Amino acid sequence: MAGVNITLLAGGVGGAKAAEGLAFGHYAQGVKVIGNVADDDEFHGLWVSPDIDTLIYSLGDQIDRQQGWGRKGESHQTLKELAALGQDTWMTLGDLDLATHIYRTQQRKQGVSMSDITQGLATRHGVNLPILLPTDDMVQTRVKTPTGWLSFQEFFVREHCQPDVIEVAYQGADQATPNAAALAQLSTSDLIVIAPSNPVVSIGAILAIPDIRQAVIDSAAYVVAVSPLIGGKTVKGPADKMLASEGKSVDSKGIYDSYQGFIDGMVIDPQDAQEADWLLAQGVDVLVTPTLMKERDDKVSLLDQVVAFALDKQAMRAA
Amino acid sequence: MAGVNITLLAGGVGGAKAAEGLAFGHYAQGVKVIGNVADDDEFHGLWVSPDIDTLIYSLGDQIDRQQGWGRKGESHQTLKELAALGQDTWMTLGDLDLATHIYRTQQRKQGVSMSDITQGLATRHGVNLPILLPTDDMVQTRVKTPTGWLSFQEFFVREHCQPDVIEVAYQGADQATPNAAALAQLSTSDLIVIAPSNPVVSIGAILAIPDIRQAVIDSAAYVVAVSPLIGGKTVKGPADKMLASEGKSVDSKGIYDSYQGFIDGMVIDPQDAQEADWLLAQGVDVLVTPTLMKERDDKVSLLDQVVAFALDKQAMRAA
Repeated sequence: MAGVNITLLAGGVGGAKAAEGLAFGHYAQGVKVIGNVADDDEFHGLWVSPDIDTLIYSLGDQIDRQQGWGRKGESHQTLKELAALGQDTWMTLGDLDLATHIYRTQQRKQGVSMSDITQGLATRHGVNLPILLPTDDMVQTRVKTPTGWLSFQEFFVREHCQPDVIEVAYQGADQATPNAAALAQLSTSDLIVIAPSNPVVSIGAILAIPDIRQAVIDSAAYVVAVSPLIGGKTVKGPADKMLASEGKSVDSKGIYDSYQGFIDGMVIDPQDAQEADWLLAQGVDVLVTPTLMKERDDKVSLLDQVVAFALDKQAMRAA
Repeated sequence: MAGVNITLLAGGVGGAKAAEGLAFGHYAQGVKVIGNVADDDEFHGLWVSPDIDTLIYSLGDQIDRQQGWGRKGESHQTLKELAALGQDTWMTLGDLDLATHIYRTQQRKQGVSMSDITQGLATRHGVNLPILLPTDDMVQTRVKTPTGWLSFQEFFVREHCQPDVIEVAYQGADQATPNAAALAQLSTSDLIVIAPSNPVVSIGAILAIPDIRQAVIDSAAYVVAVSPLIGGKTVKGPADKMLASEGKSVDSKGIYDSYQGFIDGMVIDPQDAQEADWLLAQGVDVLVTPTLMKERDDKVSLLDQVVAFALDKQAMRAA
């Protein structure tokens, strides 16, 4: 069944894996991705969009598969030289990757919208599905720690997610103008898939824009989330700390709470199967299936299952 | 005789060779270089100062000795990727070199003066003499060709100096505020050495700033120019076309005319020895000595001779 209008809400590495699963799967036609721009930051005067680039490089098969981000065949000549010039270089930016940041920064300076820049980069990398941005405005995730507020990359990369998280804020989200294309996509979707991304700093940052959250809530689409937890642990990243900082539990309940009010179905790993009953009791459909994605086959298999499950449940609800 | 206060007016490759000759020669102590910023331009949103970088990389022994510009051990990953992104990449910018441009652009954006940025870069590269800029303002050489005005780099790099040159202009020079350090250096110099650089687009661009030219004219220093011509030809670059565009001859007379009003001595190659008499008749002291500089020894030997010659002639004039 091709042609189902599917929106994927995606963060970084987990989001990119889910995007690949959809892009190369049975339902590829009709898939659009809404990515996260709130991890964006400036380094060396260059504007870096880590989550968007991870999506583009993954879908274009130019990602470093070992680490899940950055370019394959990457070198770091420029960064080494910037270090020699006394610059902070904890944010790893390779030479190929820097071309993306130089290009984006220049285009941005010339007044090209972040959406159009993203499309230009996606085209160059042979990405076969549209990547939409929730907003072209600047929204930035900030993380409050015992020693003060950090930018997301400071927390994530520089501090290796070590500090305790007291609070997460989305600077600029309230004032951000949502992109019409993202709102239109959400309102016309048959299905909204929430990738196994961090519910706070990835998906939460997209939904922090009030009109985007409202569009998800208002959408007639079936909304299904793939839990980023396996056996109560995050596969990658600080989702556990982030959930805890919001007073949520680090389990399917915590994920459910993050998406409460608009979630119809959840996909959880067999290691968390014992949490299915609680979810079902909340009126949430549950698919229990292995959610770890390593190779492309894993990704396609999981996302094909997720969509088939959601369409099936949606049809049952409609009947 | 160390401690002579010497100013070198220097352009790109020829200027950098002369700077090395002074920096590693007998008179190294007390040498300051005034470099050319009018070749500067923006590429990919990054501010590039080709002549200043050639000076810094040469003096720091990090220049690609084969080509005379750019970094040794250079790679071009970022540029290749920018080309793949559809960008014009005729201006060769290597990965190591790009760090310089990224650093300069960011510092500039933060309000650091071009002089301070230059000093920071020079320090990083171990440059052992001060590099002063004639101005921290933007001055840009423009070249009028039969098809219209080109930036200097468009003419020099993109068009390989092929178009006829109708006129050369120094955009911004009239309005540029001269740097106090450059003016002070010129007014206190014992000796001003004009490197074998292009008299029009390198030295001419420095002297296009009215107060800088006046400071050279007013200086009590002995002013000696090393001709960039050997056998009536330029060693490198488009000095011949440039001289012709100003109605000057492509020989020692043309060089003399470029510096008329303030030149005391000239250094010419034995291949141009027949032009010595004409220069002497103008009241210009002449040193005939091989001016081709390949190895560091050539540079040091030539510049030591130039300074010794100038000091000798200066002493004779004072006597």
